[in-house]
Amino acid sequence: MDLDALVRPILDLLRRADARDPRISDLAGPDAHADAFAALGVPLSLGPGEPPVDPAALARTIEAIIARSVRTLHPRFFNQNFAGADPIAVVGDFLGAALNTTMATYEAAPVFTLMERQVLARLAALAGWSAHEGLFVPGGSYSNLYALQLARLRVDPDARERGHDGAARVAFTSAHGHYSLEKSVVLLGLGRRALIKVACDERGRMRPDALAAAIDDALARGQRPFFVNATAGTTVLGGFDPLPALADLAERHGLWLHVDGSFGASALFSPAQAHLMAGVERADSLAWNLHKMLGATQQCAAFLVRGTGALRPAFAAGADYLFQPDKPFAELDSGDTTFQCARRVDALKAWLLWKARGEPGFAARIDHAVALADSCAARIAGDPRFRLAAPPSWVNVCFWWLPPALRPLPARTADVDAVLHDLAPRIKAAMLRRGEAMLGFQPVDGGPNCFRLLFINPATTTADIEATLELLDACGREASAAGA
Amino acid sequence: MDLDALVRPILDLLRRADARDPRISDLAGPDAHADAFAALGVPLSLGPGEPPVDPAALARTIEAIIARSVRTLHPRFFNQNFAGADPIAVVGDFLGAALNTTMATYEAAPVFTLMERQVLARLAALAGWSAHEGLFVPGGSYSNLYALQLARLRVDPDARERGHDGAARVAFTSAHGHYSLEKSVVLLGLGRRALIKVACDERGRMRPDALAAAIDDALARGQRPFFVNATAGTTVLGGFDPLPALADLAERHGLWLHVDGSFGASALFSPAQAHLMAGVERADSLAWNLHKMLGATQQCAAFLVRGTGALRPAFAAGADYLFQPDKPFAELDSGDTTFQCARRVDALKAWLLWKARGEPGFAARIDHAVALADSCAARIAGDPRFRLAAPPSWVNVCFWWLPPALRPLPARTADVDAVLHDLAPRIKAAMLRRGEAMLGFQPVDGGPNCFRLLFINPATTTADIEATLELLDACGREASAAGA
Repeated sequence: MDLDALVRPILDLLRRADARDPRISDLAGPDAHADAFAALGVPLSLGPGEPPVDPAALARTIEAIIARSVRTLHPRFFNQNFAGADPIAVVGDFLGAALNTTMATYEAAPVFTLMERQVLARLAALAGWSAHEGLFVPGGSYSNLYALQLARLRVDPDARERGHDGAARVAFTSAHGHYSLEKSVVLLGLGRRALIKVACDERGRMRPDALAAAIDDALARGQRPFFVNATAGTTVLGGFDPLPALADLAERHGLWLHVDGSFGASALFSPAQAHLMAGVERADSLAWNLHKMLGATQQCAAFLVRGTGALRPAFAAGADYLFQPDKPFAELDSGDTTFQCARRVDALKAWLLWKARGEPGFAARIDHAVALADSCAARIAGDPRFRLAAPPSWVNVCFWWLPPALRPLPARTADVDAVLHDLAPRIKAAMLRRGEAMLGFQPVDGGPNCFRLLFINPATTTADIEATLELLDACGREASAAGA
Repeated sequence: MDLDALVRPILDLLRRADARDPRISDLAGPDAHADAFAALGVPLSLGPGEPPVDPAALARTIEAIIARSVRTLHPRFFNQNFAGADPIAVVGDFLGAALNTTMATYEAAPVFTLMERQVLARLAALAGWSAHEGLFVPGGSYSNLYALQLARLRVDPDARERGHDGAARVAFTSAHGHYSLEKSVVLLGLGRRALIKVACDERGRMRPDALAAAIDDALARGQRPFFVNATAGTTVLGGFDPLPALADLAERHGLWLHVDGSFGASALFSPAQAHLMAGVERADSLAWNLHKMLGATQQCAAFLVRGTGALRPAFAAGADYLFQPDKPFAELDSGDTTFQCARRVDALKAWLLWKARGEPGFAARIDHAVALADSCAARIAGDPRFRLAAPPSWVNVCFWWLPPALRPLPARTADVDAVLHDLAPRIKAAMLRRGEAMLGFQPVDGGPNCFRLLFINPATTTADIEATLELLDACGREASAAGA
């Protein structure tokens, strides 16, 4: 097999990662994609007994996959809470796949076990913790799930054997917290009603007075608070919950304080931004995704617990075919400290990326993103065609494009909101057709859909902001005219 | 950055995947690894504010990582339920990392969404299902967890809102079933006592009479059975539970029948082995890991549900920043049918591998592995230095090396068992020091530690079996002499 021919288009893609050309996405439907692959002689469908395709067709197929996929490496891809994957991390994924092993035991993953320990140790040190345990998990949702499970077992260790006792235990998160908290309480058998959503300020930050009141209300109802999720970097507005005030409340009421820093914990790498995370030194656990701000590719999610000794009793099953205590270096096996059995060696790419960029490189990446967001927000504030939907935070800028009839934006009424709300999907569709930039939209706090720019890619420039806003204006006029 | 220099050692590794040289592993301890990386100028540790290393050092570091990691590609790596990663799958992982996106929405992963649907559809067809839903998850443990959650919600839909009601619901799995079932009932808040382990026959297959009795006993105790996990390919003995008999019992008692085919479902690709899976057409759900028998690299785990409409109500949270119903092709978004938010594009490598090898290629891989296991078992049965610990099943061969004083093996007594049990770790350590083959050991059914050979790598030959058994004999004599 000609491996070079298969790998060449991937290397070409990485080499031209920063190019503004070709397009990001072409919004093709399923049929168009199916037709294109069929025309190559390699249909997307898998028929019964289908024989192998010839090796030359495989190389062409890889080129087609690249051409027809969304170019998240593009400097104008603002659509998700990740962007601009670092080629070093991509190579790290390649290396990990080639060495195909699992993190469960030191025996099968000696170097990666040591790397995971080093990465977690430095992350914990950045959080200001003097003792910790942790592991890489398949995403921030699992970090949040595990945190809830540890918190539940702390207040009810018998749940491990007996199951949930039906007590009305309740957890708190903000109205802007990640939806995995809601999914987690359902999966854990606590039930959706066990999650109480606390009001936020206009930047998507949990209000400590609202949390205090919510805790008091819960206690008055006879419920038993056990957990607070503080979000560091909310998905939509980039808000950082006020950790010191939340830690005070958690301490007063004996609650487990988890910080979902999946998006925002990387602020700790930047001396200029680390203040956003002040208070994390008092958290009981922390979710920290290196695949969001740092470009470490999907997935690279660290879950950290302050102190030691909580993970093993929560997750151990002690499979004797895997975790033989009489094996050399068995004390380094991580498998019995996690829910899953085989784990990908995500720590490898984290370690490699860290060595390649250094902490100053990580800090520069963060600072560049925050500076771009600030510059974009200022630019929007001074342009009558746009209106900020919330004060800018972190790397998130949320705003509306205003149709000419709504400039300047009058007092918001149901009619005005309806116009803005309905425009967003049509503008987005027009942008996807052009394929020159990609950003998301969503409602915020019951208001109309607004657009969201997320600054993460270090290759993005102020010129990209200009180009994207002009494109948005052109698509807005197009959608506005079509809808009139 | 010189990407070629970083990628070259990875391609070299893949090109010499089948080589019997160099060694598989060198059993170095943490200090030896740390010293080696420090000598390169790239210490494993991560110091505060550490600057980037120079690019040339990065390439050397990748070479060191390869040299110091376990060579799971080696034809004599028999240590886990995976081996011999297919280079096409490795390239698929590389491609997926370079295109760095998530499966949550069609918008962000159009081609991969379609590939996932095609792969799942063909897997479901191989299982004989006329309707299905499913997704790729980060490992078989999650498939088993999700199956339990779906089953719980089928009998108690209010649990989603209310949480576990404390009813004594019980699930069944065999004594040889995977330990993730036990971890799952704990995580789900059902509690460890909700899992009842059913006795197996000498090949690690659940006994239907024992299951029938266990169900009756549970009912007599006032418990409420809701779930049976049937294992298709147990981890240690390779046993396939008798699916038709288990399906009869599940049907009679209204239980959800999940088949954990993480290891064994790939038998469905081989016309000669598919009979092992007969009855799977009646299952409610199925775990099927393509990263085990088919070499699809970690992780490539399909979770399939028969019928439609169960996943969304179990997992939906409807985050409005991600799943806008007014977006083009939103009906193809998979994100609200799973617990996690971002998902890796594991379907890509599955699809690519499938196209490259075809179903005949998959069948040949399975048949080769089973033939080697049969040949190995016959070879061991005729050699007085060894004794089979169980009749061979699937690709698993479990056996003891007998010290000269125990040939032929006398009736097993506590003393005899103690000798065999204590020898295994010492023989393994001797093997790890030599690094020429790698296999696991574990106790079976309360007996002494036995060795386990798992035949998965298509490059493995009968000559490798001979060499490994001779090596084992040499290490046995060494360990036996040292222990005498």
